[in-house]
Amino acid sequence: MAVNLSVPARDALRAVPGVTLEVAEAGIKKPGRKDLLVITLDKGNTVAGVFTQNRFCAAPVVVSKAHLDAGVQVRALVVNTGNANAGTGEQGRANALAVCAALAEELGCAREQVLPFSTGVILEPLPVERLIAGLPTRRAADWLDAANAIMTTDTQPKAASRTLQLGGREVVMTGIAKGAGMIHPNMATMLGFVATDATVTRPVLQQLVREVADVSFNCISVDGDTSTNDSFILISTGQDADALIDSAEHPDYAPLKAALTDLSIELAQAIVRDGEGATKFMTVTVEGGRTQDECKAVGYAIARSPLVKTAFFASDPNLGRLLAAIGYAGIHDLDVERIELYLDEVLVAADGGRHPGYQEADGQRVMAKPEITVRVRLNRGAVQATVWSCDFSYDYVRINADYRS
Amino acid sequence: MAVNLSVPARDALRAVPGVTLEVAEAGIKKPGRKDLLVITLDKGNTVAGVFTQNRFCAAPVVVSKAHLDAGVQVRALVVNTGNANAGTGEQGRANALAVCAALAEELGCAREQVLPFSTGVILEPLPVERLIAGLPTRRAADWLDAANAIMTTDTQPKAASRTLQLGGREVVMTGIAKGAGMIHPNMATMLGFVATDATVTRPVLQQLVREVADVSFNCISVDGDTSTNDSFILISTGQDADALIDSAEHPDYAPLKAALTDLSIELAQAIVRDGEGATKFMTVTVEGGRTQDECKAVGYAIARSPLVKTAFFASDPNLGRLLAAIGYAGIHDLDVERIELYLDEVLVAADGGRHPGYQEADGQRVMAKPEITVRVRLNRGAVQATVWSCDFSYDYVRINADYRS
Repeated sequence: MAVNLSVPARDALRAVPGVTLEVAEAGIKKPGRKDLLVITLDKGNTVAGVFTQNRFCAAPVVVSKAHLDAGVQVRALVVNTGNANAGTGEQGRANALAVCAALAEELGCAREQVLPFSTGVILEPLPVERLIAGLPTRRAADWLDAANAIMTTDTQPKAASRTLQLGGREVVMTGIAKGAGMIHPNMATMLGFVATDATVTRPVLQQLVREVADVSFNCISVDGDTSTNDSFILISTGQDADALIDSAEHPDYAPLKAALTDLSIELAQAIVRDGEGATKFMTVTVEGGRTQDECKAVGYAIARSPLVKTAFFASDPNLGRLLAAIGYAGIHDLDVERIELYLDEVLVAADGGRHPGYQEADGQRVMAKPEITVRVRLNRGAVQATVWSCDFSYDYVRINADYRS
Repeated sequence: MAVNLSVPARDALRAVPGVTLEVAEAGIKKPGRKDLLVITLDKGNTVAGVFTQNRFCAAPVVVSKAHLDAGVQVRALVVNTGNANAGTGEQGRANALAVCAALAEELGCAREQVLPFSTGVILEPLPVERLIAGLPTRRAADWLDAANAIMTTDTQPKAASRTLQLGGREVVMTGIAKGAGMIHPNMATMLGFVATDATVTRPVLQQLVREVADVSFNCISVDGDTSTNDSFILISTGQDADALIDSAEHPDYAPLKAALTDLSIELAQAIVRDGEGATKFMTVTVEGGRTQDECKAVGYAIARSPLVKTAFFASDPNLGRLLAAIGYAGIHDLDVERIELYLDEVLVAADGGRHPGYQEADGQRVMAKPEITVRVRLNRGAVQATVWSCDFSYDYVRINADYRS
């Protein structure tokens, strides 16, 4: 069902020196599938992350944040699918720590040097014994295997690579991500991991991960539900200490950020393309706003509206629903007479009503496409923002009415 | 599909002295159905209303607000279904005024003494000629006919009556409302009209309509989409000048407000029970909050969540989705360890996780019911709020993918 999304070619995904990937079948939710990923990092790395703003954040989010805040060097990340270890209270945190401790003992490092991540069903105890028992059974894997091992309701693995010339050296960056429901990130997506062998200090990496998330994973919505487990992690393997990027003013910062942003947007869009039940991919661009926040508010009002999403599913240019969403986005002094609404290149509405030149057939032609751009010109400022979303189909209901069974 | 909602008995709907109802077939969207309602009021009445906060509010909302603000006595309300006259710009306002003028000429009153209301498709020109041509064809009707004449995707008409002894006299109140999609009122529902022969001054009636709306129509959500046309109108026919309620301290104010609130909650709940595709009716009560706003924010986060709504459709106690919604409701200092979550009388979660006594079979038993209460105890204050909502079904998608055709 995914919209214009194909499985990444295995050989297009570049290995990142300093990163070792392994997967296992731990039987967390059901037997016979890869559900455990371990990412081990060589010495010299730095790691930074952004996490969900959901107050019911999962135990692994609490533990990963604490371990990152401890300032010790990260040795490994351990990721399970099949159970989110969220809404699990004190026992959930103890379980997440037990997983870290088991892996740390094997690797000969401190528990704080392991970051745990989980995705899956909420409010059910983590089967921690199965997870720990699965750790020693893991086998060498590549990035495509890793992307497969973190899927839940995703229909396809999501991974991408970029390369970049920095200071005469080729820098590699590769990342993976997973959706496919409870996607309305308020920090990062459900799970995203990007590694690069560019060498970046921890404070600069933290700035980088936030700036990249704000224009990639923080710009998507599948169903408006902000997850308990959202985590987006950026890894610098630090294999080239001579090319250290130690400030945002460093000449390599901007090109590195541009390439990481490009990669992260591809992964974030892949989550939307593979959104639960998605048949359409919508780009909502809001221009001429006064602030980034108001542009995003209008974009998300459109991206979240069940009425807009069902109209896109039906390929029905019932475009009044777009105006209604713009109108309730919360801009109290919005002058609706100044707004222009485009569907791809077709001007639909202006001067507070339907544009005289608009023909239903033109709207119909655009709505029939699998990828559609909604462009809203607010004409009250110079700021713009883009969010990506998908439609709302029978299959969204089916998937979420069936998900636990 | 409506949940525990039956067509009101015609003889249970009490006529309100001073109110004349008439309906017509104007052929606004398609021929052969009653789509035009005229409510004519005898002299002595007062009318007050609350309207949508959507910035793209419809032309009839703009005109009705202006006419109410003019302070002249209302002579008639004219309501059409089949076209919302929203997103129609300057021409839309001219069309709404033309309808008022046509009716005013017939009634021998000023244009400002007529209030227009519309519901239906957005962004399409109002067929004003057909509407005006339909006016003289109207026939006498009762409240059930009136409720039928304002339906769009509603499957059943919504109407109710109450009586009350005030100062030795029986006071009557009867109201009608319509849903059934684009329901997330921020002032009032799509359309609601309640008339009483209690005699209330205009400023007191305005206070009354706001207070009643805040605990009835402003507490429901079908799909989270705030309409362009929401209007809730309260009519006092003023037939008994000796019993004038001229302040909120008047001894009759509180009992009248209680009866009107009771009536309005029934109508608001009827909209949810008949929500597009609804198979379940959910009451979400949030207790122990610090403010009304935070209780409503938590209630609406649950009521709007597509993941919660599809789980209710499936009768699946996938209750982690409820915790996730509570967590992203926007209370930044929420201590999730203090929250208790009940499904009917079953304690599901406490201390940040699943309650040790919770059995899946108990959750399953409650979820199988057509009416379910979700109770969230925040344990941080003394305020509570209740919102009502319905589930998200295949039929919601079907109805909204088909609505225009």
